Amino acid sequence: MTRTPEHLIESTVSLLNEVRDHAPLVQCVTNAVVTNFTANVLLALGAAPAMVDIPGEAGPFAGIASGVLINLGTPTSGQREAMREAALAATNDGTPWVLDPVAIGALPVRTALAAELKTARPTIVRGNASEIIAFDGAGAGGRGVDATDGVEDAVDAARRIAGVTGGVVAVSGPVDVVTDGDHEARLGNGDVLLTRVTGGGCALGAVMAAFAGVTTDRFAATVAAVTVYNVAAEVATARAVGPGSFAVAFLDALAGLDADTVRARAVIS
Amino acid sequence: MTRTPEHLIESTVSLLNEVRDHAPLVQCVTNAVVTNFTANVLLALGAAPAMVDIPGEAGPFAGIASGVLINLGTPTSGQREAMREAALAATNDGTPWVLDPVAIGALPVRTALAAELKTARPTIVRGNASEIIAFDGAGAGGRGVDATDGVEDAVDAARRIAGVTGGVVAVSGPVDVVTDGDHEARLGNGDVLLTRVTGGGCALGAVMAAFAGVTTDRFAATVAAVTVYNVAAEVATARAVGPGSFAVAFLDALAGLDADTVRARAVIS
Amino acid sequence: MTRTPEHLIESTVSLLNEVRDHAPLVQCVTNAVVTNFTANVLLALGAAPAMVDIPGEAGPFAGIASGVLINLGTPTSGQREAMREAALAATNDGTPWVLDPVAIGALPVRTALAAELKTARPTIVRGNASEIIAFDGAGAGGRGVDATDGVEDAVDAARRIAGVTGGVVAVSGPVDVVTDGDHEARLGNGDVLLTRVTGGGCALGAVMAAFAGVTTDRFAATVAAVTVYNVAAEVATARAVGPGSFAVAFLDALAGLDADTVRARAVIS
Repeated sequence: MTRTPEHLIESTVSLLNEVRDHAPLVQCVTNAVVTNFTANVLLALGAAPAMVDIPGEAGPFAGIASGVLINLGTPTSGQREAMREAALAATNDGTPWVLDPVAIGALPVRTALAAELKTARPTIVRGNASEIIAFDGAGAGGRGVDATDGVEDAVDAARRIAGVTGGVVAVSGPVDVVTDGDHEARLGNGDVLLTRVTGGGCALGAVMAAFAGVTTDRFAATVAAVTVYNVAAEVATARAVGPGSFAVAFLDALAGLDADTVRARAVIS
Repeated sequence: MTRTPEHLIESTVSLLNEVRDHAPLVQCVTNAVVTNFTANVLLALGAAPAMVDIPGEAGPFAGIASGVLINLGTPTSGQREAMREAALAATNDGTPWVLDPVAIGALPVRTALAAELKTARPTIVRGNASEIIAFDGAGAGGRGVDATDGVEDAVDAARRIAGVTGGVVAVSGPVDVVTDGDHEARLGNGDVLLTRVTGGGCALGAVMAAFAGVTTDRFAATVAAVTVYNVAAEVATARAVGPGSFAVAFLDALAGLDADTVRARAVIS
Repeated sequence: MTRTPEHLIESTVSLLNEVRDHAPLVQCVTNAVVTNFTANVLLALGAAPAMVDIPGEAGPFAGIASGVLINLGTPTSGQREAMREAALAATNDGTPWVLDPVAIGALPVRTALAAELKTARPTIVRGNASEIIAFDGAGAGGRGVDATDGVEDAVDAARRIAGVTGGVVAVSGPVDVVTDGDHEARLGNGDVLLTRVTGGGCALGAVMAAFAGVTTDRFAATVAAVTVYNVAAEVATARAVGPGSFAVAFLDALAGLDADTVRARAVIS
């Protein structure tokens, strides 16, 4: 497949249309802090959120869903069981699923769970540099949810993870890196205000699941998710006074984003 | 009781004043996605939210509360026990309670729980057409939280449920239907942006509990809740750029809604 | 230490700078309704939120965090265990921690837990008058989360609690009272719109943990937290149409608050 920046920009535009046309059903097993924002981001994008996260339902639903997000932010014991169910069912049924190993490394319960979920081969892994390094088994994790490593420091780890999972890995930062082991893209959009709103990163994982739900090209889906999300952030920043109005404008911008704006602003290399 | 549209509009106006004057205490046992929005909707309306949802507290509190909402959106095992407690205590103590059987049909745990809660005779049942049909025992449920059936297709089911519970049933959709088996109203207010904000339906259940907390006329309370809520949505739409600014404007509109606006906009037949 | 209003205003200004310079890591074990708003308030302030609230992680993390909030709003059984862990670890490691005994008195599970956590000697206790009186063991609690007692009625109880914990106690209301048993301050800022947004009080507890994370002077930290928070609310009110736009403007105001505004508006006696 051609992976030039020009092709990736065009696939981003066409996948955004696909998401809006098909409203992929995105199951989220995610943390208590960001469920609301995540659902609103999916709705603004044109996807259909479903926060099905209890044992006995999470597995069966992963077979129905177009895509699944598993985010380790506040993993209660019930959620951990639901995550195992959903990951296995998604892998078995061919539903693409995204793993966001929030704050692993320093925190023992989620770190053990992340290692376990790695064996179920997530379609996409998304994290900041410290989380990706920890997920690779090489680091000691960051400071809570904040990365203490640079994105480029995590690229080798990202490639190794892709080698193990056979999927895509995205490292978030000022410039995001997406790799599937064979191809790599660097994505330069976004705004620092996204880091001043809780769930700025977590909701992106759900958006990746939405895009992965409309195409089998998961590399292009991941690039499209990051680019659409971060271009919307740039549009929102122009309308914002601070983090409160930014979050509101971001949902508006995501709902109103058009192909011309994506083409004019996308920074992919 | 007179059930003409004109009388229902006037009872809506007077019940809105009652809610603001008495600030009914509304206990919510609701899903993790919408707790924040639901509490903010109740506060904007003039009611007093209390999210008391753990076993050992949910039952006793249902005796103190003016109204109770039980929403099956993300029913953890602890919440399921709390829901049983709250439903039984509410029925025993005469506290009106609203059941919102979110996404039942396809999902086994909540479907079984909904059937069990039905026997406790909810004062008001609120759902989209697919949920109401599933609650009646006749359907296979919708697609996650989205209805795949039309509102009118669910009216017979709604009537049968009212016959079993002795209460009121509300079917949400472009035109909402409210029935207690004897009377029926069709409510034409609202805006599609409400479906682009998570909790747009869930918070309405809490508003119904607030209105039911200030009158023994639960049919009028349900009509008032739907009408006030949906008229506020129309006011908000005029000030919104997209779903983000709509949610903000909706809370402002709910807090500022006056009798003249309700009378000028209410569409009841 | 000098405790004149003038000195407290200057320490408020300098502690706000400290928070922004050091971005204290604030662990929150808080209720499901307000996690999102609380995290956004901390981010707007310039602190780093981490909602680590499961057993096995909450304790170890309390040793890493700069400050800890324990809020009893929706205490699931898992959270209760995490709260015990976090409180003990914080006390052992010298991490300042804030206890917010939401709605204790009427509700049995959290009331027993609050009594237990009292023995771990919280650095700061924050509540409305009814909660503070109940925490002192003298009252029957309020009406859900709303105070039914006046702030001044709770001052003796606050002093007694400070005597037992050796820490600071803050009573929220139209005029807030802060006491450590030896010193007392009355803080007159704020706006009634803060009571129309859920988490208006709960997020303040997290802000106290942030300020306590940058100084060993916990009395000054508590005064600074209340003053910064309530001055931001006043700034936001001027830009708000109702509770929805107020919450948005409040986050913007918190992020943009400068020393001159604090000095011009602070009401401390």
